[in-house]
Amino acid sequence: MEIFHDIQKLRQSLDTKRLEGKNIGFVPTMGYLHQGHLSLIKSSAKENDVTVLSIYVNPTQFAPNEDLDNYPRDLENDTKIAEEAGADIIFIPNNKMMYIDNHVTYVNVHELTDNLCGLSRPTHFQGVTTIVTKLFNIVQPKRAYFGQKDAQQAIIIKRMVKDLNIPVDIVVCPIIREHDGLAMSSRNTYLNQQERSEATILNESLQKAKLLIEAGERDSKVIKNTIESMINSKPSANIDYISIVSQETLKDITTIKGSILIAIAVKMGNTRLIDNIQMEV
Amino acid sequence: MEIFHDIQKLRQSLDTKRLEGKNIGFVPTMGYLHQGHLSLIKSSAKENDVTVLSIYVNPTQFAPNEDLDNYPRDLENDTKIAEEAGADIIFIPNNKMMYIDNHVTYVNVHELTDNLCGLSRPTHFQGVTTIVTKLFNIVQPKRAYFGQKDAQQAIIIKRMVKDLNIPVDIVVCPIIREHDGLAMSSRNTYLNQQERSEATILNESLQKAKLLIEAGERDSKVIKNTIESMINSKPSANIDYISIVSQETLKDITTIKGSILIAIAVKMGNTRLIDNIQMEV
Repeated sequence: MEIFHDIQKLRQSLDTKRLEGKNIGFVPTMGYLHQGHLSLIKSSAKENDVTVLSIYVNPTQFAPNEDLDNYPRDLENDTKIAEEAGADIIFIPNNKMMYIDNHVTYVNVHELTDNLCGLSRPTHFQGVTTIVTKLFNIVQPKRAYFGQKDAQQAIIIKRMVKDLNIPVDIVVCPIIREHDGLAMSSRNTYLNQQERSEATILNESLQKAKLLIEAGERDSKVIKNTIESMINSKPSANIDYISIVSQETLKDITTIKGSILIAIAVKMGNTRLIDNIQMEV
Repeated sequence: MEIFHDIQKLRQSLDTKRLEGKNIGFVPTMGYLHQGHLSLIKSSAKENDVTVLSIYVNPTQFAPNEDLDNYPRDLENDTKIAEEAGADIIFIPNNKMMYIDNHVTYVNVHELTDNLCGLSRPTHFQGVTTIVTKLFNIVQPKRAYFGQKDAQQAIIIKRMVKDLNIPVDIVVCPIIREHDGLAMSSRNTYLNQQERSEATILNESLQKAKLLIEAGERDSKVIKNTIESMINSKPSANIDYISIVSQETLKDITTIKGSILIAIAVKMGNTRLIDNIQMEV
């Protein structure tokens, strides 16, 4: 496995591989890898000749009051487990390289970024779409892999790729969960024992919502109230949003019908966690 | 020469050429080609194995009150003279193909788009940067050619390419002028006889400004006043802006120093013309 810190050297290496006719798979991450990330690397390694992993904690997707400085990092372990999962190249740029002086260009996906996490994190997705565009232009992969845990992000990136004719296939991989159902996240490491124990309520409430819909419930309000009651029963929990939206528009729906996404964001103590479930009704 | 209307078919053709190791040069235009465009095609044909010309009157760079519907078109002549100049492929997409239903993604270059044409055309450059990004992603050229006549556009696109790590070299070619000095533009066709005759004042006033600076004048105000008086002496002329800016920031400067751009926009009757001159002082 090779590690690159420099954009030009990475490009040269990948140009050679492309000219040899090799397909490049790409997994962009912020590091502190868990089984969710490893599942993306494994999918890429299976479907492409070369798998590139990027590790970069992108400052433009954090608001000033968020956890940029404290975001967990462990490059040594990341490198080790990424190689075991099948990564061939790890790209680890620094801020100076990624945002040159006087950086003024941003990619904006409108409408889809207004609801859900966009409400409480208004500049977040502009940071995501801009850095993903930059990384795509650097790596020029055939396929790129994203996790379903960040459901809104996956939908926004698929739309961006379509709208801007970006020549990359977006592959969205299922949420990987702990044994008790908590969606894997680098931020889970922030949780204290009580918060960690109570955090399973996110998945439990989504499963309950699924059962209600399967039993015939079609009123979004009823579903949302059920999720809300379950989450509020946990002392550490503070709800950011509980939303039921169309997968296509990410706009709230009042009647459960079609391709829907139930997405929730909850603060457990100081740690904001998200989870979601998709259904075809 | 080949003509493509379909994105997928163009991509297939270019993918094959790229795999053969051929370099692709790209000239994006809105058609109604003149000698300025042809000089871009000739430069590309000289420096690349394959030259792709796109002809597309991009609606998102026109404001509702502008000349989108009346923008001059002559595909038959364009095709003929583009081939003579060395174009190998012409790409002529339609609106439905370029802006799919629910298009919501835009590329925004901030700050550089605030001044000059950005003042009177506030959504123009968002349209330009978005369509250029789309076309770059479709054609994936090694080099792309733009005219110096659209000085602000060239500077914005160079910055966008740098900020987003777009793997394309931007080549900016000199302004091509009529025998009497008027900068070539598809919009010159709108001018009536009087307007056409008076329109030479744009270049004449810029040449006068150059002489003053070469003679030692360093006060932007004095230069701008001179240009203003000359242009206002023509009955058809209505000044939009006369600006002296830094080539780096496109911000107004009061003292002539460094890499400067003198840019002007003038309405001759109903036709808005632009011209500019760059100097190193």
